[in-house]
Amino acid sequence: MNNLDIKTYMQDLGQRSRVAARAMARAGSRAKDAALAAIAARIELEQATLIDANARDLEAGLSSGLEAPLLDRLELTPARITAIAEGLRHIAALADPVGGITDLRSRPSGIQVGRMRVPLGVVGIIYESRPNVTADAAGLCLKSGNAAILRGGSEAIHSNRAIAACVRAGLDAAGLPADAVQVVDVTDRAAVGELISMPEFVDVIVPRGGKSLIERISREARVPVIKHLDGLCHVYVDAAADLDKAVAIAYNAKTQRYGVCNAMECLLLHESLAAAVLERLWPMLRETGVEVRGCERSRKLVPEFKAATDADYATEYLAPILSLKIVDDLDQAMAHIEHYGSKHTDAIITEDLGATRRFLNEVDSSSVMVNASTRFADGFEYGLGAEVGISTDKFHARGPVGLEGLTSQKYIVIGDGNIRE
Amino acid sequence: MNNLDIKTYMQDLGQRSRVAARAMARAGSRAKDAALAAIAARIELEQATLIDANARDLEAGLSSGLEAPLLDRLELTPARITAIAEGLRHIAALADPVGGITDLRSRPSGIQVGRMRVPLGVVGIIYESRPNVTADAAGLCLKSGNAAILRGGSEAIHSNRAIAACVRAGLDAAGLPADAVQVVDVTDRAAVGELISMPEFVDVIVPRGGKSLIERISREARVPVIKHLDGLCHVYVDAAADLDKAVAIAYNAKTQRYGVCNAMECLLLHESLAAAVLERLWPMLRETGVEVRGCERSRKLVPEFKAATDADYATEYLAPILSLKIVDDLDQAMAHIEHYGSKHTDAIITEDLGATRRFLNEVDSSSVMVNASTRFADGFEYGLGAEVGISTDKFHARGPVGLEGLTSQKYIVIGDGNIRE
Repeated sequence: MNNLDIKTYMQDLGQRSRVAARAMARAGSRAKDAALAAIAARIELEQATLIDANARDLEAGLSSGLEAPLLDRLELTPARITAIAEGLRHIAALADPVGGITDLRSRPSGIQVGRMRVPLGVVGIIYESRPNVTADAAGLCLKSGNAAILRGGSEAIHSNRAIAACVRAGLDAAGLPADAVQVVDVTDRAAVGELISMPEFVDVIVPRGGKSLIERISREARVPVIKHLDGLCHVYVDAAADLDKAVAIAYNAKTQRYGVCNAMECLLLHESLAAAVLERLWPMLRETGVEVRGCERSRKLVPEFKAATDADYATEYLAPILSLKIVDDLDQAMAHIEHYGSKHTDAIITEDLGATRRFLNEVDSSSVMVNASTRFADGFEYGLGAEVGISTDKFHARGPVGLEGLTSQKYIVIGDGNIRE
Repeated sequence: MNNLDIKTYMQDLGQRSRVAARAMARAGSRAKDAALAAIAARIELEQATLIDANARDLEAGLSSGLEAPLLDRLELTPARITAIAEGLRHIAALADPVGGITDLRSRPSGIQVGRMRVPLGVVGIIYESRPNVTADAAGLCLKSGNAAILRGGSEAIHSNRAIAACVRAGLDAAGLPADAVQVVDVTDRAAVGELISMPEFVDVIVPRGGKSLIERISREARVPVIKHLDGLCHVYVDAAADLDKAVAIAYNAKTQRYGVCNAMECLLLHESLAAAVLERLWPMLRETGVEVRGCERSRKLVPEFKAATDADYATEYLAPILSLKIVDDLDQAMAHIEHYGSKHTDAIITEDLGATRRFLNEVDSSSVMVNASTRFADGFEYGLGAEVGISTDKFHARGPVGLEGLTSQKYIVIGDGNIRE
């Protein structure tokens, strides 16, 4: 397709999504949950079809030299297909966010004013190789009464088409418009450019993938974007920390998983506790194979630490590497977080109420924690049920974004013939 | 100034706002309210200075041929200056939105998860001739813990500078950074271009003014915009309407004020009630000097109506003109609203619960009303205390935007040494 054809194709897709979004906004919980159940059943029924389609993607990936981790993410196994279906049933079991009325209050004029939760409209989701995102994202958008336009990686096109067919069949079986979930069937990158430039048809974009993808989309989008860029998370061990908690949390936040955005990348230690913490923590980290890059003061305590550079403190390693700094006080710790942090998730370990209050109030991150591992920053752990992404922006939503993040609130006014004087 | 100098100037302004925003986010309610009181007092004290500065703007406006309504909006009188000071004291009396914690719940892992309300950061406000907006907007941003960059119309530059001096003095007196409110002191339009393209320094833009200004800013902004474009509001008189309420509300929604975004521009009448409504409403409208442009069916009932064109139904008159259409049923009414409306405010007049439920659920407008005049769509009437604008977008905020709309929520997590298994 040339660029003009792609524009026409995307505009048509957008228009059909807009029509479907109206129907979805009005769909009842029962119809939406029936669709989710039907899609889940269809995905299990079509397991062989999905695996065949996926085999074509894997073959193409192998011959084009896709790296092993990407091939792994691309692969659909019977177990993964079952997990996709279970995920959809889990979404069906969540409470419907749409239509809930809150804060209904009487005003002096006699009117009652409240807010009703409503879908955003059309959600564009741009992601990379994992085909399970196609079903996940479709399910979240459907449950929240939105229409979705899904643009997966070109390397997963056959898998995504096969999953999309199941989604359409399920929507259809439940009497909902099949266009409520559309997969962009053009692998050309220009399709993404169109998708993020149609404010008349698309209300919000959620990019899921590497930093360069997200940066490019944020820069070029003409519609709002729910995004997070970096996850450079800190744990600060305060002077009033409980040593057991400090050691356990620091170890967990660094080592429970490395390649995730809510892993700790930098440990800040109050000078009064630094030696005691490191005496216990360093053998654990060394044992696990974590390399520590520390400040001068820390290297006097543990000569095995490499010297940390300024660049280290600004790096999200996503690896068994930890930067470390000894600080004089809470202010210095918060200044470090402000300077080097990414506003994702930062934690303080302390038993002191004043330090807790200051850290919670003053640290400007999407999740701020006390005496808990940064690894908890996650939609499931927070009780959102599911997660479409994590926002490090301040506008609209901050932190893990679940079904509520895919909705907005309109005002409703109920009167009894009231007029304005 | 050339464009490069303007860029440097705006970047410097932005950087200083970013620093001030950090201090504002941490400022306590007492300091913020003291600043508001000090600004109000200073504005009253400096009445003569403000009127002098304003006289220079008025003189320049006169000699450059500014139209009478614009000159009127530009003028500062002693009464208007008192109203500005009162407005600031009113904002001081509102509850501080910052720091409130909601939905704090225990999770199975043992952590408690809640949300804390936090400022957005730096708010850029772009407006036209009315100098009172300088004080209003400064007050709202200050109370909500944000820093503000204000860009008023070039025709009000001397007035705005004089008000800004009072604001800075008041901030200073309360121990808050004077840079928390900065007025762009460059009248060149390129300054606006810079203001809306600095995501590193500005978190959100609120344009207040004519449609063309807002359209241009929405198109070009690289940061989120809180905006409303049109206010093409409908009142639908349902088959089950109470006739008294229908007539009173339709008359009020059209005639209480003409040039406002929440005035009714189009009246939809169910065919079964159309004759009865018009028999009473038309003499009242005629008496008040309202011109009606109606559909064919309505002109059979009232031959004095002009014929409505398709363009009429798409027009926000902001004048004593009303378009009118007789419809067969609720579906036709809602289809008309969906096609011609602007998603601002739409009302149904009915005593029927089913029609109420459908209208509230299905009409996709920022305010949806039952048996109340569209003129109630307003931050004060809704109990927000003050209003920075009305949003017809769905992302972040819909409808009147008060202090809460200038804030976001971050997650807070409180544990007792919890780690993720």
